[in-house]
Amino acid sequence: MTNEQSASARQAPVTVVGLGPMGLALAGALRGRGHRTTVWNRTPGKADRLVATGVRRAATVAEAVSASPVTIMCLKDYETMYEVFGSAGDALRGRVLVNLNSGTPKEAHAAAGWAAERGVSYLDGAIMVPPPMVGHPGSVFLYSGSREVFDEHRPTLASMGDPRYLGSDPGLAVLYNTALLEMMYATINGYLHATAMAGSAGVPAVEFAELAIGWFLPAVLGPMLAEEAPVLDKGEYPGDLGTLEMNLNALDHIARTAQEQGVQTDQPRLMREIAARAIADGHGGKNYLAVFEVFKHQAR
Amino acid sequence: MTNEQSASARQAPVTVVGLGPMGLALAGALRGRGHRTTVWNRTPGKADRLVATGVRRAATVAEAVSASPVTIMCLKDYETMYEVFGSAGDALRGRVLVNLNSGTPKEAHAAAGWAAERGVSYLDGAIMVPPPMVGHPGSVFLYSGSREVFDEHRPTLASMGDPRYLGSDPGLAVLYNTALLEMMYATINGYLHATAMAGSAGVPAVEFAELAIGWFLPAVLGPMLAEEAPVLDKGEYPGDLGTLEMNLNALDHIARTAQEQGVQTDQPRLMREIAARAIADGHGGKNYLAVFEVFKHQAR
Repeated sequence: MTNEQSASARQAPVTVVGLGPMGLALAGALRGRGHRTTVWNRTPGKADRLVATGVRRAATVAEAVSASPVTIMCLKDYETMYEVFGSAGDALRGRVLVNLNSGTPKEAHAAAGWAAERGVSYLDGAIMVPPPMVGHPGSVFLYSGSREVFDEHRPTLASMGDPRYLGSDPGLAVLYNTALLEMMYATINGYLHATAMAGSAGVPAVEFAELAIGWFLPAVLGPMLAEEAPVLDKGEYPGDLGTLEMNLNALDHIARTAQEQGVQTDQPRLMREIAARAIADGHGGKNYLAVFEVFKHQAR
Repeated sequence: MTNEQSASARQAPVTVVGLGPMGLALAGALRGRGHRTTVWNRTPGKADRLVATGVRRAATVAEAVSASPVTIMCLKDYETMYEVFGSAGDALRGRVLVNLNSGTPKEAHAAAGWAAERGVSYLDGAIMVPPPMVGHPGSVFLYSGSREVFDEHRPTLASMGDPRYLGSDPGLAVLYNTALLEMMYATINGYLHATAMAGSAGVPAVEFAELAIGWFLPAVLGPMLAEEAPVLDKGEYPGDLGTLEMNLNALDHIARTAQEQGVQTDQPRLMREIAARAIADGHGGKNYLAVFEVFKHQAR
């Protein structure tokens, strides 16, 4: 109790709007770190358990927003945001709105414009961890928009997770979030398809994982990926140690093996096609990373 | 010199057939570890530099094979193997042939049958590192086929890299190799496309890599993958913490963002399709790993 009281003295009041599983976790973490926390949700009952821990429930969005210098919002999408805050009149003016909805960079830009028109300081953010990890060390939250707003309210943001500032373009947080999620799905799919390939010969997933996740990913793949970024920025892909033509052979081989083993072939075939497209674009003598040039543009 | 001589006393003679970049590396590593090493290559000049280090050049395949109890072969493909060893008459009978060609499990099975008919002890293998890493600690070589042959010649195999035995099915080494390569390409593609996505807003690859490779891969993705294998073997994918329906929304969002940012859309679209197919197959209320069921079979 003493800890929480002394913390309260230091911590700024915060409002959380939207109490889905993530909003509940955010409000809980803020309250736990000693912030005077006010919440609003369309279905007020969602706040019951929070209220029992000392969180204040506001009757209206305007009341919620007025209770704190900073409002964190975690709604379904940007449309819901316009709807919900449209009911708050001028209550947000002069305050800070931190938007943790997921969306596209365009939606984030539009929201930043909407906020600016209303005299609202706006920060767009994205949460890189599931609700149970909120408030734990190492739980990364991405933010973009005004550096000033970020710096001023960093202590509050830090109560929810490890805040990382990406830049003044308000679309960066959702774009990074989307790109990282994409990388996650692609990596999982690669692993799952490879596991299915090994499974076609009766290899249990745990056995394949010993090599694939226990050795290959950390010892080979991770270090390989770590070296790629400067090459990509340079946009030069010398083929002295291996060419895309050779990679196409390997990808051909992978697709043929998938066919022969009776597992799904669409995923290996698309990888083959992407390499073939890079070769058709004149990158055949370069190394595999030249497929980056294919990824950078929409297919003609 | 003394080191090499005392090593020679312990080390078994080995023959290497096929002197592409990998065969050269293998012969060099074997010679370096003190094996009396004999080589054969269709173009004999490829052996010149090895000969200068004490490697013996055989004039014919039969002569090469007869020089050692174990022949390591590293040819372009299985067809070349039949062609090359067809010229060796009965020289291989009673000896060990270790096949490090890449190929499909079916090709490995056929080669094992071919060897058995000729009284040749056969081991199929795959090399998981590029030529410069051959002979270095941590360089994994996969083997499958006779456990006896593997155990007996393990010291010789260990001179080329870290030998791992996968099982008696001779197709396992090439299948593991293909599956791991596939995982590599899928992971690289996921990372490259994500980098292109971030790059569409002007984010340099090195900056995106700080989070993607410096934090996300080791801190989030790796541990997540490490937990998946037992679930896959069980084939149950409870959706309490998130369902495929929710993942489809996320994948929809990724594909829409790719479109909006002007980067390639085929890769995120295929990921979306795979999730949609799993839902159509009745897995919508399960968690994302249920896409494994899609990967295990050929599309209808």
